[in-house]
Amino acid sequence: MNKRATDVVIIGAGPVGLFQVFELGLQGLKAIVIDSVPEIGGQCSQLYPEKPIYDIPAIPMASAQSIVNDLAKQASPFKPEYLLSQKVIDIEKVRDDLFYVKTDKSVVVECRAVIIAAGSGAFEPVRLKVKGVEVFENKQLFYSVKDKNRFANKNVVILGGGDSAFDWALTLQPIAKSVLLIHRSSNFRAAKASVVKMEQLCDNYEMQFLSGQVVDYQQEDGLLSKIIVQSSGIKRTVELDHLLVFFGLSPKIGPIANWHLAMNHHQVCVDTEKFQTSVPGIYAVGDINYYPGKRKLILSGFHEAALAAFAIKQSMDTSKRVATLYTTTSPILHKLINPEEMLVD
Amino acid sequence: MNKRATDVVIIGAGPVGLFQVFELGLQGLKAIVIDSVPEIGGQCSQLYPEKPIYDIPAIPMASAQSIVNDLAKQASPFKPEYLLSQKVIDIEKVRDDLFYVKTDKSVVVECRAVIIAAGSGAFEPVRLKVKGVEVFENKQLFYSVKDKNRFANKNVVILGGGDSAFDWALTLQPIAKSVLLIHRSSNFRAAKASVVKMEQLCDNYEMQFLSGQVVDYQQEDGLLSKIIVQSSGIKRTVELDHLLVFFGLSPKIGPIANWHLAMNHHQVCVDTEKFQTSVPGIYAVGDINYYPGKRKLILSGFHEAALAAFAIKQSMDTSKRVATLYTTTSPILHKLINPEEMLVD
Repeated sequence: MNKRATDVVIIGAGPVGLFQVFELGLQGLKAIVIDSVPEIGGQCSQLYPEKPIYDIPAIPMASAQSIVNDLAKQASPFKPEYLLSQKVIDIEKVRDDLFYVKTDKSVVVECRAVIIAAGSGAFEPVRLKVKGVEVFENKQLFYSVKDKNRFANKNVVILGGGDSAFDWALTLQPIAKSVLLIHRSSNFRAAKASVVKMEQLCDNYEMQFLSGQVVDYQQEDGLLSKIIVQSSGIKRTVELDHLLVFFGLSPKIGPIANWHLAMNHHQVCVDTEKFQTSVPGIYAVGDINYYPGKRKLILSGFHEAALAAFAIKQSMDTSKRVATLYTTTSPILHKLINPEEMLVD
Repeated sequence: MNKRATDVVIIGAGPVGLFQVFELGLQGLKAIVIDSVPEIGGQCSQLYPEKPIYDIPAIPMASAQSIVNDLAKQASPFKPEYLLSQKVIDIEKVRDDLFYVKTDKSVVVECRAVIIAAGSGAFEPVRLKVKGVEVFENKQLFYSVKDKNRFANKNVVILGGGDSAFDWALTLQPIAKSVLLIHRSSNFRAAKASVVKMEQLCDNYEMQFLSGQVVDYQQEDGLLSKIIVQSSGIKRTVELDHLLVFFGLSPKIGPIANWHLAMNHHQVCVDTEKFQTSVPGIYAVGDINYYPGKRKLILSGFHEAALAAFAIKQSMDTSKRVATLYTTTSPILHKLINPEEMLVD
C-alpha cells in the first residue's frame, strides 16, 4: 500500500481537472489528480486532439490539444501530482473533511476534499447485447457519430427511443440513402417535436419506424449485412450498411454508483454556489455535474472549478470570508512564478 | 430620433459584454453593444490595459488589453454594432420580449431582450467631499491607479479603510518615498492579513497610519501641497505629492435604480440558470450581478454570458429545446468564418 496525503484529490485530468489544480493553487491548496488513461487532457487529448475549438473566451480558435497544453502550463506553478493509468476504486469517507481515495494500483491518498471532474468519460454507452456483433464496432456498428458524412447514401438503421436516437435519425435522414428507426415500443423518451417530425417523415415515406428488438444478425464476406428483428411475435430480416445504437450510458467509474450521490440521469447533482454533491466534501465540476440550466461547455467547467475552490477553502476556515484576490497581485501565485518569464504578447 | 432594431442590446462593452456578443452570435442572435466610454474593453482598457492577468483559463498570462483584443476578434464574425460614447438613459418595456432602449445621443434601439454587462463601471467612485479639491483630479488626486510607477519616490497619502485602500497602500509602499494611510477609525473593512501587514510596516516605521478625516487642503503654485486632517479634536497638516482616495463606489447608470430590479448591495440579483434579473427579459452578467457564491471573476462572467445566451434563445422559441452545439461543428459560426484564416498555434 502506497500512502500519500494532499489537500484535494481531483478525479479526472481533463481540461476542467487541470484548471481545478490552478484554482485550488490560488487558494493555497495542493492537489493530486487521478486519471485512468496514461496522459493528461481527457477526451480533448484522447478523442480529438486536432479538433479546433472556438468558444474558449479570448481564444478565437485553438486545437483541443493546445488548450490542454496551456492549461497544464497554467497549473504547473502549483506542482500538481498526476497519478495516471490508474482508476479510483474506492473512496472512504471518515468525516466531512477527511477521505481516503484508493486506486487500482494500491495507492491510498488521504485528503480533505474530493472533486469529481471525470467528464463524459465517466460513462460508456450501453452495448447492443447480441452475441458476436461487437466485431463490427467502429466499422459498421457505432455508439456515437464522429463524422456524419460516413453515413451519406447508406442504408442506416438506428436503435433507441431517446433524444440521441431521434436527433441522429433526423440529422441523417436528408443525407442517408434510407433511415430505419427501431425501438422496442412506440413509447418514446425523445422530445415531442422530434417525435412529431419523425412521424411526418414516416407518413411521407422518407423514413421508416419499426417496433421491435434486434435479436440476431447475418454477415456476408465479413460485413454485417442484415439484422434480425423480433417484432410482435414475428421475426423480420432487415438489410443495412450501418447500425447506430443509442441505448444510453452506464457509469464506468464504479464508485460513483456506490457513493449514492444524488443523480439526474447520468449527471451528478450539485448546487450552483459550491458545486458540492449531495455528499458533503465531495464536489463535481465539468460535464459530469448537473444543475438547472447546465450546459456541457468547457467554459462552464472552468467557472465551476473556480467556485468549488473558493468553497473548499472556505470550508477549511469558516472563521473568515475568503476574499476574491486578483491574480495580478496574488501573493501565492507570485511567490511561485516569475512574471517576467511568463510575459506573452 | 435615430431608430434601430436588433435581437439583443448589451449594456457595457467590457470583456464579458464582448464575449456575450459571441455567445449570442452562436445562437443566431444579433447584438448592439452600448457603452458610455469611447472605446470597447471596459475597465480592462480604461483602467489597467497593461495589467497582467493569470486566471483566464488556458491563457497562463496576458495583459488586460490583449484579452480585450482577442475577445473583440472572437466576436467580430457576428458583426456587432457598437454604440460608444453614449449612455443608456431609459429602457421602456413594452412586453417581456419587446424593449426600447434609449441613449443620451437620441438613439432608440428596439430589441427582444436586454443584457446588463456594465461591470463595476456601472458605478463611480465616491468622491472626497472637500470643496475645490476636484481641480486636482487625475493630476494629484486619484480614485484609481492606472500606472503605479507614477507614485515612485513620491509622498503618497491614501484615504480609506477597505481592501482597495489597503491593497494599494501595501503595493505602493515599496516604491513610494512614503505612504500614509488615513481612515476615520482603526476599524477596517480590509482583509485581516492586509491589516496585519500594515501594522507590521507601521511598527517598523515603513508606513504610517493616521486616524482622522480630510477637511481642507492648501495649494502652492497651482499644486496640491498639503491636506488638513481633523484627528481626535485637533487639526494636523500633512504634506504630500499624491492623494489616493478609496471610499467605495456609488451607482452611475441611473436606469438601474429606476428599473426597480432586485438588488443585493450594489449588485443586481439574478438566477443561476438564465442569469435573468427580477424583470423578465432583462438579464445581467459579469461583475454587476449577484447570486449565492458569486465571485467577481472574468471567467464567471463568461459562463454567465453563455447560459444567458442559451436562455434568451430558448425564450424566443419555447417549442423545442435549444441544443448545446459544439463550436467545432457550429453551422452558424462556420458560415461566418473561414477556419483556415483563424488557425492559431
